Amino acid sequence: MNEDRLSHIIKAALSGDSTLVVKNANVVNVFTKEIMHADVAVYDDTIIGVGSFSGKNEYDAHGAYLCPGFIDAHVHIESSMVTPASFSDIVLEHGTCAVIADPHEIANVFGAAGVRAMRSLSDGVPLDVRFMTPSCVPATKLETSGASLSAEDMAQLIAQGVTAGLGEVMDFGAVARCEPDMLKKLSLFDGKIVDGHAPMMSGLMLNAYRAAGPATDHEFSTFGEFIEKLRAGMYMLLRVGSAANDIGAILTRIARDKLPTDRLMFCTDDKHIEHIMREGHINAIARLAVKCGISPVDAVCMASCNAARAYGINDMGAIAPGYRATMVLFDDLEEFSVRDVFVSGKPYKRPAHAAAPRCFAEIPQFYDSVRYAPLTAESFSLFTDEYADVIKLKDGTLVTELVKRRVNTENGVYMPTARLNKLAVIERHRATGSMSVALVEGFGLAGGAIASSVGHDSHNIIVVGDNDSDMLAAVDALKTCGGGYCAVRGGKTAAILALPIAGLMTDAPISQVIQRQHELLNAAKLMGAYGASDPLITLSFLALPVIPRVRLTDIGLFDAAEQRFIYVGNGRKKQ
Amino acid sequence: MNEDRLSHIIKAALSGDSTLVVKNANVVNVFTKEIMHADVAVYDDTIIGVGSFSGKNEYDAHGAYLCPGFIDAHVHIESSMVTPASFSDIVLEHGTCAVIADPHEIANVFGAAGVRAMRSLSDGVPLDVRFMTPSCVPATKLETSGASLSAEDMAQLIAQGVTAGLGEVMDFGAVARCEPDMLKKLSLFDGKIVDGHAPMMSGLMLNAYRAAGPATDHEFSTFGEFIEKLRAGMYMLLRVGSAANDIGAILTRIARDKLPTDRLMFCTDDKHIEHIMREGHINAIARLAVKCGISPVDAVCMASCNAARAYGINDMGAIAPGYRATMVLFDDLEEFSVRDVFVSGKPYKRPAHAAAPRCFAEIPQFYDSVRYAPLTAESFSLFTDEYADVIKLKDGTLVTELVKRRVNTENGVYMPTARLNKLAVIERHRATGSMSVALVEGFGLAGGAIASSVGHDSHNIIVVGDNDSDMLAAVDALKTCGGGYCAVRGGKTAAILALPIAGLMTDAPISQVIQRQHELLNAAKLMGAYGASDPLITLSFLALPVIPRVRLTDIGLFDAAEQRFIYVGNGRKKQ
Repeated sequence: MNEDRLSHIIKAALSGDSTLVVKNANVVNVFTKEIMHADVAVYDDTIIGVGSFSGKNEYDAHGAYLCPGFIDAHVHIESSMVTPASFSDIVLEHGTCAVIADPHEIANVFGAAGVRAMRSLSDGVPLDVRFMTPSCVPATKLETSGASLSAEDMAQLIAQGVTAGLGEVMDFGAVARCEPDMLKKLSLFDGKIVDGHAPMMSGLMLNAYRAAGPATDHEFSTFGEFIEKLRAGMYMLLRVGSAANDIGAILTRIARDKLPTDRLMFCTDDKHIEHIMREGHINAIARLAVKCGISPVDAVCMASCNAARAYGINDMGAIAPGYRATMVLFDDLEEFSVRDVFVSGKPYKRPAHAAAPRCFAEIPQFYDSVRYAPLTAESFSLFTDEYADVIKLKDGTLVTELVKRRVNTENGVYMPTARLNKLAVIERHRATGSMSVALVEGFGLAGGAIASSVGHDSHNIIVVGDNDSDMLAAVDALKTCGGGYCAVRGGKTAAILALPIAGLMTDAPISQVIQRQHELLNAAKLMGAYGASDPLITLSFLALPVIPRVRLTDIGLFDAAEQRFIYVGNGRKKQ
Repeated sequence: MNEDRLSHIIKAALSGDSTLVVKNANVVNVFTKEIMHADVAVYDDTIIGVGSFSGKNEYDAHGAYLCPGFIDAHVHIESSMVTPASFSDIVLEHGTCAVIADPHEIANVFGAAGVRAMRSLSDGVPLDVRFMTPSCVPATKLETSGASLSAEDMAQLIAQGVTAGLGEVMDFGAVARCEPDMLKKLSLFDGKIVDGHAPMMSGLMLNAYRAAGPATDHEFSTFGEFIEKLRAGMYMLLRVGSAANDIGAILTRIARDKLPTDRLMFCTDDKHIEHIMREGHINAIARLAVKCGISPVDAVCMASCNAARAYGINDMGAIAPGYRATMVLFDDLEEFSVRDVFVSGKPYKRPAHAAAPRCFAEIPQFYDSVRYAPLTAESFSLFTDEYADVIKLKDGTLVTELVKRRVNTENGVYMPTARLNKLAVIERHRATGSMSVALVEGFGLAGGAIASSVGHDSHNIIVVGDNDSDMLAAVDALKTCGGGYCAVRGGKTAAILALPIAGLMTDAPISQVIQRQHELLNAAKLMGAYGASDPLITLSFLALPVIPRVRLTDIGLFDAAEQRFIYVGNGRKKQ
């Protein structure tokens, strides 16, 4: 606080002169873990007292429960496909007032400038967005990303106040091998918060990883894994997102064993806007926690102050003098239905947005990031012998299998087969011409193609289809709209969701985004895509080479189990 | 951690190669609040694993309790009268491995250079000493201090990494009045830890004070005061020092009400070295806490990790991979008797000290700070009418009364009376000639004088006696030895404790310091000083104008209740 503001706050607190009094609330005190019937006096954006107050501007809480604003400890905003402003609209209505965001996706497209763009897009938004520095850009050397983020870039982002800590360190191999670049990054963030990402990590590896810096984890699936990491000193982020939500048993065990909860917090990581609107956000995890036996006040702390402390949001996480008056009023502490939200001392109303900026000065291609070398239908040819390597999808999981299938060929070129689709990944950042083609079983498209510029983690174009011309049409449609998702059926665009910002996000209204997603899913279904899993998510993750077992990057078909390319480009040509 | 160290730690953790294994310990896990039978593997100064380990260098704990090194959250090292090196020797044997030190005393003598001197004297000492920036130097405008500490000085101390936060903000009047200099200091430490000092503070004033920045308090005497401050978001420092130790009832209530203890920690503030050696240090407070019903593991957390988190000592406060291997082995978690201490991975042995540096380059008068204008016995004359204003001591408290006593005078000059002593304060930093004289009842000296260069908070010379020539002799003896305490009886030096560093500390052996203190107390007793209170402490606090009701500074006799000088200098001369 500067001296002027300090002086105003001190005078207001001394006199009790407020700009807002929230009367008759059941206030959750995170320090004593009491629920106290009290009024909360606010001056400007700051809480100046909890007790008995009156003022010119009173809000009657009628005994509802006033909590510190909830915090999502780990989220990728880009994966919501909307801008931080729209994301803010969605989550604030559920009481999430701050997020720790890892702009990993846009960093893979635009590098440090992309991170700065996310910062810039978040400034002035009611949601308090704190950014971590994506630690692994490019994610791997197995694909062509749009940008890289060096330790030097990171140092600059810290110096500019853009990022607070280091984002999830996924490349634990690089840590274990003491790769100089990784050590440089870790040492750069010495004394700052470093997020971990350590699925199944245990024993000596966990010791080494923790000692190296990563101090949080959100990738655990059993209580045994949870407790080992907690004992080792990791902050534990209990995650309920769209894909991952299996923490009920762990929460129940935490409650049963009366474990301390002060190092536990909540996160969503990735949660679709439609799911958020239906189920809630961090409040949905608090609801689950209470259902599992966690005390309501502990759940509130896990949803607020624990994250605030871990991530250094010093003025959030409590309702006490000097804290920012960003608070949520819940009808109760079981369902956590939001009655009202206060942001920086004012009742929150969903704002009527001005349009997002049409460009971000630092990135000329901000709205025009889809650039690939000229393509024809022939570009999608696949060279193979009669026993082709095929990616086999499994229902209900992103994990794939590698299988051999007998196929028809003509002069060594694959000829369409009903049960297989073609999959292609096309470098789309600098038009290098790098692309590859493979076969996929289990997608089930007939008579069309679906393409996307969201392809984890490098976000090249990924396209699936049963014929080359529809695949080409779908890819070209993406170029026209600046990226997104497109379904082409029988040569015609059946549905399109334009994501023109970096090919990842849109500033279109939320309702329109949801509408377009429905249209895309319908189109996919009409073309025969299996209904159980979301074909759009399935597609976007088929390029991620860190998930077993076999993936396609712009470089080639990669066997993650054996850590080798099965082939590069368009397959094996006959000698 | 730099990259080289990171690489060594990662490799050691991965392989389990250690430089020390503490075998068979009952390890306190502050994250899960479990006590786990385990081995702790250490590489160099860092913990690399807790579990089952063996190594070339094993230490068998035989089931004793291994805890993170204890932390004193608030202490004035100068008040121990020994250097940080000696202080380290004393407290480490009781398991205190880090302290948050407020170098308020030396700052009043030498300003920012004094703070840097304390930093420099603490470097390389086994005890981890973190410094706060003294917030109130000079303490008041009612006395002449040796130096001042401006906001600019503070900014420099932060930039140089000398200090971490702002020391106890005692001048809450300046906060309430929004004095620009105070606001400047507070805003300078925005986002950093600011210590409070808020005796009896409550209600709106507490709200304003807390909102302004101070986030800790150690000046509470009832449970009501404690809980109000805890609710307001203050970290609460439970203090057991030499003078203040009345927290048993509060601890009992905390235990009974099952209050969360994660924002509570321990401090000593001021504790004499003899008391530390007899009773212990932070471990003595842990012992008391457990006796009062606090769970042993919670007491360990209050003594370690809670303070580490509040004061940002990131690598202390836990026994887990990546933390510094600074640990205490206790026989049990009730008495907290120390079996062994490990500092940065090595068993601690009291070092055979090299002598402290004979000077600190930045301060020429480091060992020669006692400088006053020429004095004669006549300088101690007191001018008064037959009803003199007298400071009346009360047994068992530092609080005094103001009384009128009928006295003999000759030409308006006070003539000695058996039941009264003379008290004088003499500016001793820049030989300005500023001095004052008053009468004190209840000290009881006969046939001698006691002088000291420790006179809170400005540390001018304060001297008490029944005759002017012994007073002069006692003061002059201090000049000769560079400051300290001196008792003169019948014209001869009866006992002397030289404190040549800033007139506050000595690098003499601890045993000698204790011996000299005993000699001083004996001499005082022989001269008739009342036995109940410590006459040395009583003397040093008679100059502190913030304690009611009446005090003597070098400027004059001050009425703290009415906030005015009763007279200045040597009393009221006849018109």
